[in-house]
Amino acid sequence: MTTTDTTAEVDDSIRNGVDTRTLFATLDAVKQAPQAAMFQFRAHNQWVSGTHNRGTIDDYFGVGEERAHERSFVFDADHPAVLVGTDHGPTPAEFLLHALAACLTAGLANIAAARKVKLTEVRSTVTGDIDLNGILGLDPEVRNGYQQLTVHFTVKGDAPAEKLRELVEQSRARSAVYDVITNGVPVTIEVDTP
Amino acid sequence: MTTTDTTAEVDDSIRNGVDTRTLFATLDAVKQAPQAAMFQFRAHNQWVSGTHNRGTIDDYFGVGEERAHERSFVFDADHPAVLVGTDHGPTPAEFLLHALAACLTAGLANIAAARKVKLTEVRSTVTGDIDLNGILGLDPEVRNGYQQLTVHFTVKGDAPAEKLRELVEQSRARSAVYDVITNGVPVTIEVDTP
Repeated sequence: MTTTDTTAEVDDSIRNGVDTRTLFATLDAVKQAPQAAMFQFRAHNQWVSGTHNRGTIDDYFGVGEERAHERSFVFDADHPAVLVGTDHGPTPAEFLLHALAACLTAGLANIAAARKVKLTEVRSTVTGDIDLNGILGLDPEVRNGYQQLTVHFTVKGDAPAEKLRELVEQSRARSAVYDVITNGVPVTIEVDTP
Repeated sequence: MTTTDTTAEVDDSIRNGVDTRTLFATLDAVKQAPQAAMFQFRAHNQWVSGTHNRGTIDDYFGVGEERAHERSFVFDADHPAVLVGTDHGPTPAEFLLHALAACLTAGLANIAAARKVKLTEVRSTVTGDIDLNGILGLDPEVRNGYQQLTVHFTVKGDAPAEKLRELVEQSRARSAVYDVITNGVPVTIEVDTP
């Protein structure tokens, strides 16, 4: 094996910015030690004023120990003026749409890499239709949340259209956020009043 | 009515940073024209590399017309290195937790203002337990999404503990994000492959 061969091999293992060798090694490691896959993610939030509040995402638990992101990520949320807020950030309901697009897109890149498809462009828009008569308490027939969500993807890569669609479908079938948003998850709320 | 009286009246209508006069006026306006409450929120996303992608939140539809936030909000999402990413942002699943905390907190501030409770501090942490054997495709018995979420609030204000708990409960009962996350919503995925 020449140096050129080695370089070619390394290049081939990195596709769509995904190091597939590390990806498959991670899968093998978790197969041997399934407990490594038990994660706890967290978001912290501090109220600022009115509908304006600030979220911080930094610490999490995974692969057997407490961990931290490389830096703290801070995100303001608010309502726009038309919803009696100060527009210092997106509405919470918009962050939900962002989470869905991000999850499907990350999965798509991983799955394409594993299946040796090179992606050149992935764009998406998630739209969510919501009737605020629900949260405003004005119509008991209307739910608080979205009536429906639509994700519209544009995907380009070195594979036929049908193959690209299959990659999106597989990403959907393995998406954590899609699962929660379509199937729901139990939520417990605890309140301290010191 | 003296100037002092007028000032006192104005001050009284703004509580917790919420202009309750505008809040109640908005409620009355929507009662008269329920169609104003039909909103469509949106999130746009562009893949960067690997699990790194970038979301933009700016345009939405509401109160009968296309609107835009005061500025575009841009958020990177990624996986940490331990999940074969580059940690340029939180994971999509963490954004979901942020959305839940932000929604419950915004609602709490509004509801407290409407019920004449002055809040002095609201902090929360949302934790989500997830077994990644699901999304890794290693255990068909394990779901892709969170097993369960817990929201822990610390709430201080000028009301008894029981009243503060009631405010959180009412916020839960009227939260768009809580509704979607606990009950689910149908998601349609469309794919263009130009």
